[in-house]
Amino acid sequence: MKTQGLVRMCCHICKLPGRVMGIRVLRFSLVVILVLLLVAGALTALLPSVKEDKMLMLRREIKSQGKSTMDSFTLIMQTYNRTDLLLKLLNHYQAVPNLHKVIVVWNNIGEKAPDELWNSLGPHPIPVIFKQQTANRMRNRLQVFPELETSAVLMVDDDTLISTPDLVFAFSVWQQFPDQIVGFVPRKHVSTSSGIYSYGGFEMQAPGSGNGDQYSMVLIGASFFNSKYLEFFQRQPAAVHALIDDTQNCDDIAMNFIIAKHIGKTSGIFVKPVNMDNLEKETNSGYSGMWHRAEHALQRSYCINKLVNIYGSMPLKYSNIMISQFGFPYANYKRKI
Amino acid sequence: MKTQGLVRMCCHICKLPGRVMGIRVLRFSLVVILVLLLVAGALTALLPSVKEDKMLMLRREIKSQGKSTMDSFTLIMQTYNRTDLLLKLLNHYQAVPNLHKVIVVWNNIGEKAPDELWNSLGPHPIPVIFKQQTANRMRNRLQVFPELETSAVLMVDDDTLISTPDLVFAFSVWQQFPDQIVGFVPRKHVSTSSGIYSYGGFEMQAPGSGNGDQYSMVLIGASFFNSKYLEFFQRQPAAVHALIDDTQNCDDIAMNFIIAKHIGKTSGIFVKPVNMDNLEKETNSGYSGMWHRAEHALQRSYCINKLVNIYGSMPLKYSNIMISQFGFPYANYKRKI
Repeated sequence: MKTQGLVRMCCHICKLPGRVMGIRVLRFSLVVILVLLLVAGALTALLPSVKEDKMLMLRREIKSQGKSTMDSFTLIMQTYNRTDLLLKLLNHYQAVPNLHKVIVVWNNIGEKAPDELWNSLGPHPIPVIFKQQTANRMRNRLQVFPELETSAVLMVDDDTLISTPDLVFAFSVWQQFPDQIVGFVPRKHVSTSSGIYSYGGFEMQAPGSGNGDQYSMVLIGASFFNSKYLEFFQRQPAAVHALIDDTQNCDDIAMNFIIAKHIGKTSGIFVKPVNMDNLEKETNSGYSGMWHRAEHALQRSYCINKLVNIYGSMPLKYSNIMISQFGFPYANYKRKI
Repeated sequence: MKTQGLVRMCCHICKLPGRVMGIRVLRFSLVVILVLLLVAGALTALLPSVKEDKMLMLRREIKSQGKSTMDSFTLIMQTYNRTDLLLKLLNHYQAVPNLHKVIVVWNNIGEKAPDELWNSLGPHPIPVIFKQQTANRMRNRLQVFPELETSAVLMVDDDTLISTPDLVFAFSVWQQFPDQIVGFVPRKHVSTSSGIYSYGGFEMQAPGSGNGDQYSMVLIGASFFNSKYLEFFQRQPAAVHALIDDTQNCDDIAMNFIIAKHIGKTSGIFVKPVNMDNLEKETNSGYSGMWHRAEHALQRSYCINKLVNIYGSMPLKYSNIMISQFGFPYANYKRKI
C-alpha cells in the first residue's frame, strides 16, 4: 500500500496517467538510481588522485587529535657522544611554546639511549622519542621519521642553545615562508674566475659590487624547515647520499641545493638571533664537534663543487635579507646615535 | 603574367586541373582570404578583454624604451612652502640608482614651480616634472599621474633625506614583495576595551602578550609601493577623500587600510633605515611640517575610527618583521658582546 502511495506521488510529480502505474514505474526508478550511482562512481574515479603528502597530512591531522600541522613543530636533534649537553638542552627545549614532539637521533651505536633516565625524571611537557641508529651517519637526522606529525621541523645541533624568544619568533617567520629554511646561521658560496666554487661565511668577499654582504645558504643545524623536505632528501641521487656518507659532512649544504632547486629562489631566510650559544666547551665528554676537524672547511667547498657536478648546475641564490624581531630587544628599531 | 604565375603556383599546390584556371581561382582565393580575416576578427572579439592596468603597463613598456617597469621606480615628492629643502633633496635623489623619473607635486598655489631654475642648472640624470596643483590638498600626491611609467613609486616627504644605500636595499626588498608598502616608518593602531581605536608608535603598548612590539602600518612618506595603488585610491568612496580633505591628514592611513583590505595581510614591511634624516629644522622658509599641529596625533586616531566606520571593518594586521641589510653596516649580524 505504501509503495503504491509513493508511486502515486511519483506519478503526480511525473504527470504520468493514472493507469500506467505500479511495478513498471518502480523498476524505472530503481534503474534511474542505479545509473546515477554508476555515474557518480565513474566521476569519482576520474577525479585527480590525492597527492601522497596530502594523504600524509590528513593522517597527521587525525593523529594529532585536531592539532593543526602548521601551528606546531617537531624538534629533531641528532646526538653523538655528548649526552650531558643533550639532556641539558632537552630540559630547555621541552618547554618551548608550539613544540609538538622531540625526536632524538641517537648516533651512539652500541650504547643504550637514556629512555629510562628520561622517563624516571618525568612527567615531561611533550613526548621525546629516542631513535637508536644502526650506524653513526650524519644523514641519519634526515630520515622520514614516522613519528613526525608536523609540517615544520626545528633542527638543532646537540651543542646549540637557542633562546625561546628567538625560536618563537623564527617559527612565526617560517609560518610566513614555509617553503624556505628559516634559520640563524647564514653561509655563502663564492665563485672564482676558474669557475670553481668555495664555501665560507662573512670573512669572504661578497659577490657583486653593492654594499654589504650576501648569503646563499642557511645551515639546517639551527633552523626551521618544511618536513616534506625530508622526503625530498631521501629521493636524491645515490651520489648525494654517498658524498655525505664519505665526508660525514655537507648534509646541510645538500639540503640547501635541493630546496633552492625546487623553489627557484634563495633556499633560506636568515633570522638574526638575539641569544644563541654554542655549549660545546661545556661538555665533559671530551668530544669536539665535527667542525673542528682540520679538513672540515675544505670538505665544504669540495661538497659544493661535487653537488654542482651531480645536479649539473649551481642552484644556490644570494640574498641579503636579514630579519629581526621588531621591538625586541626593546626599541631595537631606533637609531644608535 | 606575374599573377598568372602565382595562380599557377597556387594551382600546383591545390592540385587543380590546368584548364580550370585564371579568374575563377583568383576570385576563390580572395574569398577564402576574406573569410579567414572575418573569422580572425570574430575570434579576437571573443578573446577576454585585456585588463586596464595590463594595457597601461604595455604602454609604459613601449614608452620607457624597453626599460622593464619592475626594474626602476618613480619618485613622487609633494611640496609646500619648503623649496629650499626640496631643491636640496632633489639634488640628492636625482642620482639614486634605478630612479626613472621624479614627479614633484607643487602645492604652492599661485607660485610658479621652479622649472626654469631647474633647467638652467642642467643637465640632470633623469627627468623631473613639476606638477602645478590647483588646490593645496594633501591627497594631491595620490593622483594617477600620466607621466608615471613604472610599477614602483618611491614616495618621500619634502623634508626627508634617505641615504642611497637604504633606498637601493629597500627597492630590492619591494621587488620581492611588490604588493606591500616597503618603507622606513612603522606605526600601529591599538584596540581599547571600548572598541575605539587609537593611533601611535613605539610608545604604545604592543598588542598581544608576546615579546617585543608590533606595527600595523608603514607610512607612505618614506616608502616604496606599487603604482597601481594610486588607481585604487582614486576609486575609494567619496567619504574617504572627504576625510582626508577635511583633516589635511591621514592619506597614508587610508592607503594602509586600502592595501591591507586588498591583500588580506599586513599592508607593509618595515625596513630599518641605516641613515635617514629629517631636515625640517634646516629650512629657511619658517614653515613647520603638518605633524607639528596640536591636533595632528588626535586626528590620526580620529581617522582610524572613521575609516573603520566607512569600510565596516578593521583591515589592518599586525607584523613584527623588521628587515635589515645583511652585512651593512659591516658585520651587523654579529652579536654585540
